[in-house]
Amino acid sequence: MIAGLGPGADDYLSKQVNEALANATDIVGYITYTSRVSDRKGLTVHSSDNRCEVQRAELALNLALSGRKVVVVSSGDPGVFAMAAAIFEVLETDPKRWRDVNIEVLPGITAMLAAAARSGAPLGHDFCVLNLSNNLKPWALIEKRLKLAIEADFAMVFYNPSSRSRPLGFERTLKILKNGCSSDRPIIFARAVSTAKETINIVPLAKAKPDMADMQTIVLVGSSQTKVFFHQNRMVAYTPRSVRD
Amino acid sequence: MIAGLGPGADDYLSKQVNEALANATDIVGYITYTSRVSDRKGLTVHSSDNRCEVQRAELALNLALSGRKVVVVSSGDPGVFAMAAAIFEVLETDPKRWRDVNIEVLPGITAMLAAAARSGAPLGHDFCVLNLSNNLKPWALIEKRLKLAIEADFAMVFYNPSSRSRPLGFERTLKILKNGCSSDRPIIFARAVSTAKETINIVPLAKAKPDMADMQTIVLVGSSQTKVFFHQNRMVAYTPRSVRD
Repeated sequence: MIAGLGPGADDYLSKQVNEALANATDIVGYITYTSRVSDRKGLTVHSSDNRCEVQRAELALNLALSGRKVVVVSSGDPGVFAMAAAIFEVLETDPKRWRDVNIEVLPGITAMLAAAARSGAPLGHDFCVLNLSNNLKPWALIEKRLKLAIEADFAMVFYNPSSRSRPLGFERTLKILKNGCSSDRPIIFARAVSTAKETINIVPLAKAKPDMADMQTIVLVGSSQTKVFFHQNRMVAYTPRSVRD
Repeated sequence: MIAGLGPGADDYLSKQVNEALANATDIVGYITYTSRVSDRKGLTVHSSDNRCEVQRAELALNLALSGRKVVVVSSGDPGVFAMAAAIFEVLETDPKRWRDVNIEVLPGITAMLAAAARSGAPLGHDFCVLNLSNNLKPWALIEKRLKLAIEADFAMVFYNPSSRSRPLGFERTLKILKNGCSSDRPIIFARAVSTAKETINIVPLAKAKPDMADMQTIVLVGSSQTKVFFHQNRMVAYTPRSVRD
């Protein structure tokens, strides 16, 4: 099984994911995520580093083939920029080898849904979702998609906006947004959502700065229709369901 | 609270949503969704018809203002084409009136994540999400977004692809896709996901037909990179994480 652990807090997990974890013999995943699974007798935890997705997928498939009850864990949802695609990529390289492995993907609450919930309802209308990391795709493609998303007037979600190894990507992204959108466009920086370190910061585009995002941040960009107002001293951003003719 | 009930089956609900339902005095929602909440002594259920979102939001805010513990329920996630935006739209019309109402949005597993999980990992790379209903926006805007999404080579998700009152929209959508994408582009029709009536149908674009989608269907469209293969007599669709230079 390939299961989503949700954004961070335990009470975001679905019942089926909790059951899968309780019945597993082996947990496989990036160490930051495996550490969120409670240890217990009879459970073997296989933690690996980031960017080892292919080796991790092979390990999980081989363990399952040997009869172990394996749960591969991802943060959020396993189908959104996470382990489900990596498993199927590896499976497709040699389908016969693993043909007896039953695979089930158990969805989870992906970071953008939790971030949106904590900031209002910025994804209440059409939107697009981009992984801003150019580790696995050319930067030119990210730039092209950003410009077309602005033209389409989508609200936008950025996963992996910034990291130490990619300090310039988000700076470039903000430049593209500032060229194409009005200066009051709401930008939401949602960091470590649902954990004790959670921060939600909503600023107009003119005040958005590259250092407002790190690897634990998800960034949401309103469409031209997104509104911001105060409720109980907290800023709320929402995108109305309607667009008038 | 504005809570997401997930795609259908009870075991997709998060612990926090289950707790909110258990502590509520009042449940408010579209009758199809309120019927999914178990009745119990002390619970008042306020069901209303589709397209009454504004009146429903006012009712919920007024009940909460009077001291009731209200949970507004949406299918899937309340922030994606659902009640959260409607509540904030109504709240913003008269913020002073409801300033004492505490509002919390509890995310849920939205239909696209469940549909993606049941078909493989089609949303493993950048994607966009469109509500194909033109009840609340002009059709020209939908068409513009579809064309730009094809140009951006996003995988796509369509909520509300078709209904009895809008028989032509999905037919037009397929025409636009057939004009802009190759005939083997995988199209996923995921109907009633996680319920006893679930069907997952993956076809190449050339074989996609308007009557394959109804109001209970979510449609996913692969990007140019999305691959399809068979595993255990079941078709799997996934979008690789990488795009080469």
